[in-house]
Amino acid sequence: MLGKMYEAEICSAARALEVVGERWSLLILRNAMFAGHTRFSEFQRSLKVAPNILTKRLAEFVEGGLLEVRTPDGGGHASYHLTERGLDLKPAILALTEWGDRWALDPEGRPVTYLHRGCGGEIAVKLTCAECGQATPPADVEARVEPWVIERKYGGQLA
Amino acid sequence: MLGKMYEAEICSAARALEVVGERWSLLILRNAMFAGHTRFSEFQRSLKVAPNILTKRLAEFVEGGLLEVRTPDGGGHASYHLTERGLDLKPAILALTEWGDRWALDPEGRPVTYLHRGCGGEIAVKLTCAECGQATPPADVEARVEPWVIERKYGGQLA
Repeated sequence: MLGKMYEAEICSAARALEVVGERWSLLILRNAMFAGHTRFSEFQRSLKVAPNILTKRLAEFVEGGLLEVRTPDGGGHASYHLTERGLDLKPAILALTEWGDRWALDPEGRPVTYLHRGCGGEIAVKLTCAECGQATPPADVEARVEPWVIERKYGGQLA
Repeated sequence: MLGKMYEAEICSAARALEVVGERWSLLILRNAMFAGHTRFSEFQRSLKVAPNILTKRLAEFVEGGLLEVRTPDGGGHASYHLTERGLDLKPAILALTEWGDRWALDPEGRPVTYLHRGCGGEIAVKLTCAECGQATPPADVEARVEPWVIERKYGGQLA
C-alpha cells in the first residue's frame, strides 16, 4: 500500500489516491472491470506494463481489499477478482474517460462507450443534486469543509 | 507533460491520466477548484508538497491547458487559474471523494460535503442512463469497445 503518501490531507479524495494514485493503478482496475481480466498474464499482455510493477500493484490491491486473490486447489495460476470495494471505483474511471473523450479525443473518435447492462442505454456521469434533482454543471458545485477539519489541520484558522 | 506514459493504450481514461495521473496532480486541482487557491505559496502551504514538485505540476498544467497563468503588469507573483478544461475534472475528483467517504472514512466523518451552488442541495455522482434515465449501480455498467480499437491494438484479434 502507498499508505501515508498524503498524510497531512484530511480528504477522502486523498485517501482514494493513496490506494489508486500510482502509475498503472486505475488502468489495471479498468481491465479488471471491463475486459474481465483476472490473470497476471492477461493484464501484462494487454497493458505491456513492466512485470515488477504489475506484481506490486496487484499485491497492493489485494492488501487494500480491492482485489481478492484465488489460487486453485493443487496449485496453478492465481486469479484476481474485483471486490465491491474495487468495483466502486467505476464512477472515477468513467469520469476520467469522459474527460478524455471531451479534451483528448482520439482522431478516430470515442474508443469505448459505456452502456447500461440489459437496457443498452449510454451511461454518463452526472453530478446530481439531492434537493432539486438537477444534473449540475461542474462550475456550480462547491465544497463545504466541516469545521473539525479546519480545527484539526490549522488549529481553527483557515490558511 | 507526461505525454506518452500509456502510449499503447487507446483509451480516454489513459489520456486523462497522462495529464493528471502523477502524485499530487489531482490534489493541486482540488485546491484550485474548491479552496480558490491561485498562488504557488497557497498551494505549497496547504499541501506541504515539495516546491520542486509543485513547480513541475503547475508548469505541466499550464502546458496542458488546465491552468492559465497570469502575471501582473510590472512584475509580482504569478497566479494560476482553472480553465474550462481543468474545471471539467471536477466529476473525477467527486467520484474519488465518494469512494474515500465510503471505503476509507475518517473516524470523525465526512470531511467535505459537495453542494449545489444557490440551491444548497448535496451533490452526488450518479451513473445515469440516457435511455431509461435511471441511476445505474457500477455493476450494471459495461463497456463496448469500438471495432477500430481492437483492429488498431491487436490487428483485429482480441487478446
